[in-house]
Amino acid sequence: MLFFQTQTVSQVLQKMREQIEPLNEKITIFIEESLGMIVADPLISAEYSPNFVRSTVDGYAVISSDTFGASDTMPAYIKIKGSVQMGEETKMLLSMGETVYVPTGGMVPAGADAVCMIEYTENLNGLLNIYKQVAPMENCIQIGEDIVKGEIILQKGHRIRSQDIALLASLGMKQVMVKKPPIVGYLSTGDEIVSYETSHLPIGKIRDSNVASIRAACKQMNASFVYGGIVKDSEQDLLPACQSLLDEVDLLVISGGSSVGERDYSYAVFNQLGKPGVYVHGISIKPGKPTLIGQIGKKPILGLPGHPVSASVIFEIFGKEMLRCLLGTYENPLFTRRKAKILRNIPSQSGRTDYFRVQLVNENDEWIAYPVYGKSGVLNTLVKSDGLAVIPEEAEGVKAGEWVEVILLS
Amino acid sequence: MLFFQTQTVSQVLQKMREQIEPLNEKITIFIEESLGMIVADPLISAEYSPNFVRSTVDGYAVISSDTFGASDTMPAYIKIKGSVQMGEETKMLLSMGETVYVPTGGMVPAGADAVCMIEYTENLNGLLNIYKQVAPMENCIQIGEDIVKGEIILQKGHRIRSQDIALLASLGMKQVMVKKPPIVGYLSTGDEIVSYETSHLPIGKIRDSNVASIRAACKQMNASFVYGGIVKDSEQDLLPACQSLLDEVDLLVISGGSSVGERDYSYAVFNQLGKPGVYVHGISIKPGKPTLIGQIGKKPILGLPGHPVSASVIFEIFGKEMLRCLLGTYENPLFTRRKAKILRNIPSQSGRTDYFRVQLVNENDEWIAYPVYGKSGVLNTLVKSDGLAVIPEEAEGVKAGEWVEVILLS
Repeated sequence: MLFFQTQTVSQVLQKMREQIEPLNEKITIFIEESLGMIVADPLISAEYSPNFVRSTVDGYAVISSDTFGASDTMPAYIKIKGSVQMGEETKMLLSMGETVYVPTGGMVPAGADAVCMIEYTENLNGLLNIYKQVAPMENCIQIGEDIVKGEIILQKGHRIRSQDIALLASLGMKQVMVKKPPIVGYLSTGDEIVSYETSHLPIGKIRDSNVASIRAACKQMNASFVYGGIVKDSEQDLLPACQSLLDEVDLLVISGGSSVGERDYSYAVFNQLGKPGVYVHGISIKPGKPTLIGQIGKKPILGLPGHPVSASVIFEIFGKEMLRCLLGTYENPLFTRRKAKILRNIPSQSGRTDYFRVQLVNENDEWIAYPVYGKSGVLNTLVKSDGLAVIPEEAEGVKAGEWVEVILLS
Repeated sequence: MLFFQTQTVSQVLQKMREQIEPLNEKITIFIEESLGMIVADPLISAEYSPNFVRSTVDGYAVISSDTFGASDTMPAYIKIKGSVQMGEETKMLLSMGETVYVPTGGMVPAGADAVCMIEYTENLNGLLNIYKQVAPMENCIQIGEDIVKGEIILQKGHRIRSQDIALLASLGMKQVMVKKPPIVGYLSTGDEIVSYETSHLPIGKIRDSNVASIRAACKQMNASFVYGGIVKDSEQDLLPACQSLLDEVDLLVISGGSSVGERDYSYAVFNQLGKPGVYVHGISIKPGKPTLIGQIGKKPILGLPGHPVSASVIFEIFGKEMLRCLLGTYENPLFTRRKAKILRNIPSQSGRTDYFRVQLVNENDEWIAYPVYGKSGVLNTLVKSDGLAVIPEEAEGVKAGEWVEVILLS
């Protein structure tokens, strides 16, 4: 009988990060479609923004020193030379003792170095009374204050957010070059597995729910998804199905058949697909011990346990990290992890990392983690959970009242 | 001159939540497309899951009492009656002293109440030696242990995640009824505004970057987006543009013209669109004071300040909450907010809520918020930020070392 040579979670993650190279392919897309995509090369601005000195208030452009000392009782008096039209360039040049009206967002003319808010002024027949002094640069945005020409605005590997798209738009960048989204190929194996579209479920069969969760998880990562269907538990069926799917994709995922039982063919099939083959068979993890990880050429392969909870957890920890490696990006724990206080003792085996399903409730400004108990075949436990509390491999469980790290299930 | 009657952030949020009714429309979609959608009605299971007793191991189904007392030195001896085929129903009925082989995921026959793992057994010419006793229910999942027929599996208002989709799939639910995504209509006003597709930007003009950030923010909320274009700063232009856009949409957003200057027509136009009109003009908030909120019939309207940072912040706080109200759902702070320690004093005005741009860095297991300084017209400050630190209205700023709540900018 074949036994596992299990490796720890940190060993496996390190090995994966060493082995999996980022995909080289880049695509150019409209910025409207770039939310969540990964910047392929450092993005450099070809412009100054703004490209003119812009007023941030409705008011009067002045040479600030003309206003020094001005107050309610001792206003400054300055001659009004005209006004700037909204959205228009002005060629006016301000000299000392002169001012022009500028609306919010309007261009501050050359010579001026500040804008007085209209609330602190009074126009008396073309002579402006100013009741409050302004400092140099006050109430205006300088040329290049937002972005300087040649500046890197987004780094390679950055995940694009809404405000990043706004910045690209403000610089007239209609398109952006991003990493091509990886294509994930997925198939399920198991004689008991039927399509989830099966209305009347025969006794003894179960519906393929893993395809649904893995497809959704890929969508969260902006990865494409190709479904290879359900394949019988036999090498003759599994090998050609894997071979043809592997040709089309960047990452191959199989659900089921990953253990060491007599019906588990994924290990043998993966090793027949090519070199280097499987380099992880069995992880010191709960749930999800019978996991396969390897590579065919540059393409990573992942064998998930068939149990729905194990499959989801393993894809969350290792599948998403494979996608990040392929995209040349990294996990940002700001959005994926959170500390919470656990209120029950949870025993665990030293040397093994446990991912314990928890509900998270905010009580008195602290996040409290309540364990959700249940077997790894019981999907509803994951639906009732907000996250996975990490019990690290060096610990023998956690004690009530301790803080644990929780991976958020969004 | 018209002045603001500003209201506090909490007053405005409360008023919005009272005024905005959830949309009634529901749509039925395939579960593959349901990620992030909002459940329209409580979802009830029409099945038991599993619908047969399922083994979680490769092993032998037994009547557990037959194994009581079994050990390495004193095995139990039980007659092997046959084996269960993977994925097949078995009509076998187990009597005391009998056992059948069952693979992982296979059906446990009637009569049996537990499964012995194969590792603790030995088949000696049809007589099974069992070296470890099993408890009742051990190594099997009972009928309905995951889901009971008639059980509510997802509540109304729940935001659908990957594991939820897997549960629906496991129950054969190919489709799900969700809230219709709200349609957001957006237009920009301002004589200085030009399309962000303008390659060569004339001096005095700025590109409409707000359309890009608001469209992306709507996408994050799974809302549809209709772009009404850029409209001149005049009542004659703005009124018909708003009227025709309002007819098509569930929420109308205008960027610019929301203040009280001579070029600000949004307030007057909103009030001409219908009743009840504007009920918030000016919020005690920084940035984004000149904000308009109202309703035409049941449709909420939002007038954003034109400054890009203000527009993004106001849409984040109020626009997204409008969408949640329309969807009949709620903010889950687990994914949107986080406490962080601020390392600088930030002064603020009592009675006003400040949203201060911050970078978040994890240091020694604590999230530290570093303020990002800059004017509200300077979009790059938002790009450099990970979140918005909330300085509450009752506080006069925060002191270095204090913990603040941060809204995450994902």
